[in-house]
Amino acid sequence: MKKHNFSAGPCILPQEVLKQASDAILNFNNDNLSLIEISHRSKPFVDVMDKAVELVKELLNVPKGYSVIFLQGGASMEFLMVPLNLMKINGKAAYTNTGAWAKKAIAEAKNLGDVTVVGDSSDTNYNYIPKGYEIPSDVDYFHCTSNNTIYGTQVKDFPNTPSLMVCDMSSDIFSRMVDISKFDIIYAGAQKNMGPAGTTLVIVKDEVLGKTGRNIPTMLDYNTHISKGSMFNTPPVFPIYVSMLTLQWLKDLGGVEVIEKVNQEKANLLYGEIDRNPLFEGTAAKEDRSNMNVCFLLNDSSKEDAFNTLWNDAGINGIKGHRSVGGYRASMYNAMPIESVQVLVDIMKKLEQN
Amino acid sequence: MKKHNFSAGPCILPQEVLKQASDAILNFNNDNLSLIEISHRSKPFVDVMDKAVELVKELLNVPKGYSVIFLQGGASMEFLMVPLNLMKINGKAAYTNTGAWAKKAIAEAKNLGDVTVVGDSSDTNYNYIPKGYEIPSDVDYFHCTSNNTIYGTQVKDFPNTPSLMVCDMSSDIFSRMVDISKFDIIYAGAQKNMGPAGTTLVIVKDEVLGKTGRNIPTMLDYNTHISKGSMFNTPPVFPIYVSMLTLQWLKDLGGVEVIEKVNQEKANLLYGEIDRNPLFEGTAAKEDRSNMNVCFLLNDSSKEDAFNTLWNDAGINGIKGHRSVGGYRASMYNAMPIESVQVLVDIMKKLEQN
Repeated sequence: MKKHNFSAGPCILPQEVLKQASDAILNFNNDNLSLIEISHRSKPFVDVMDKAVELVKELLNVPKGYSVIFLQGGASMEFLMVPLNLMKINGKAAYTNTGAWAKKAIAEAKNLGDVTVVGDSSDTNYNYIPKGYEIPSDVDYFHCTSNNTIYGTQVKDFPNTPSLMVCDMSSDIFSRMVDISKFDIIYAGAQKNMGPAGTTLVIVKDEVLGKTGRNIPTMLDYNTHISKGSMFNTPPVFPIYVSMLTLQWLKDLGGVEVIEKVNQEKANLLYGEIDRNPLFEGTAAKEDRSNMNVCFLLNDSSKEDAFNTLWNDAGINGIKGHRSVGGYRASMYNAMPIESVQVLVDIMKKLEQN
Repeated sequence: MKKHNFSAGPCILPQEVLKQASDAILNFNNDNLSLIEISHRSKPFVDVMDKAVELVKELLNVPKGYSVIFLQGGASMEFLMVPLNLMKINGKAAYTNTGAWAKKAIAEAKNLGDVTVVGDSSDTNYNYIPKGYEIPSDVDYFHCTSNNTIYGTQVKDFPNTPSLMVCDMSSDIFSRMVDISKFDIIYAGAQKNMGPAGTTLVIVKDEVLGKTGRNIPTMLDYNTHISKGSMFNTPPVFPIYVSMLTLQWLKDLGGVEVIEKVNQEKANLLYGEIDRNPLFEGTAAKEDRSNMNVCFLLNDSSKEDAFNTLWNDAGINGIKGHRSVGGYRASMYNAMPIESVQVLVDIMKKLEQN
């Protein structure tokens, strides 16, 4: 029985992408060689890299003057690279503190300069997105997190900033249209809507780089990777290949506008049931609810075993809540069909009826 | 026709490993989920990580007091992490300059302290391994490269050092037994003898860390990754899994001692033909010849087309020499059967006879 995979990440990928990836491990490009045993400088792989970059640009409407690169180290490495590349010596930055990952980003930036936290929802266990804050005009950049996987909150309207704007979009990139021109750096670990763990997508406005006066270590300088087309050293071949396949799948489906509607339908279906069913309760502020990660509690703990048995028997996987929120978390990334969400909703109804 | 894959890296992996990896992309651990769509904190993947670490320790006889971690960013990131973690503020280090990668390692360390190049073969296009050099006793560490992929040279005897010793073993780790206790940090990009591109193995003596007085950025501090068992953030799941499979394959084969003999036989076979056949000539000093990467020239350029046609028709792949050496380079990593080397040798003989 195929599972209904609600994992928060690494997470569900399209079945046809998995099939193509599996085939490429044995015989890539009909060359009788595996994808993972050929030179990254061979034409077949250079074509993969080029296509991945092109698909990112096309799907997100990336304006001219921006570079698209694939790095390693996840968002955690970007927490360091962003201040290294944008913060002047003795410089300043503004951050919103909207979750565990935002907090780590702040801690890393603080080692390099003066960080002002302009919005902070840690007082209520990060269950909302701060709004109406002011960003000082003298900061080198403003940093926010678009979607908070652990707490199930999502920025619906990005602020207007007097400074550069940087966003960690790890857990909702490609799930909805955003106006890339509002941002100067966007980064995202692949392992939600893009591909397997092991590569990080960075979209950067070229003109903002090279202005800090810092001596940036080679591997941490975005310009190193931009100038070498993400091939300064051997790139993570397999994660980039599968990302390319996933982006092609998204394009074939109609692109981000189409998936955004599907994601909204899935969110409406599950949040609708959480709000209707007296046994359940959402944890995030309604106006900030994430369309990717739905966090909810079961109000009646005596029904916990029954609920767990029900979803387990239905082949549902990965909906245990993160330890810092408790309860349940249903992650519904792009590759999750609405049918899987319906299975979960049906079980919630069944629990109520029993 | 299955190819004879002499690529320098990413390179040949065992056929049975590729088969298992391909299967795991569709259905891992009989859970009806792909390896790349499950949580890295799920038991099946934690087991993979544990097993990979255990296999490294077993295959290399890693002594107690050393940690084994899997990072991202390749050897290029280690060029930065090594001085950050070992070099005191205003500290010193000694390096050998034995090739393009050693040179990059030196450049990165120079940004952090005083670097003495104690041995240098750049004067003759890196065709030998410097020997008999003295390592100053006041350096924080000595750094060398065990095998130079581009130039086909290999350190046969590691020096005795008055300081800590660090080695980039990217292109020959697991190909021969080394006495790990002589080293304080060993690092290696996976994509030669261990697995696909996208993870870096680091073996580090715990007691040498935390003594620099530096404030090391979180992701660049070896202790971050040691304390979290390589799961500080999402690890590169697939490259680590395939590395584990490859190490298991090596163990089943009899381990490093057994493969070392096979590698010696392959080297004897090919170098023997290069020395015997008047049409060919090796580029590296004989006593420093690499058992992994065999660089050679065709003396008679009028036979180039004939040779290229011969090896191409025989299904040989990836033997074009690196642009900085020219000629040919046959990389013969662990997974290459001696039969493939024989095919190449037969063609060299055939060219002579024609």
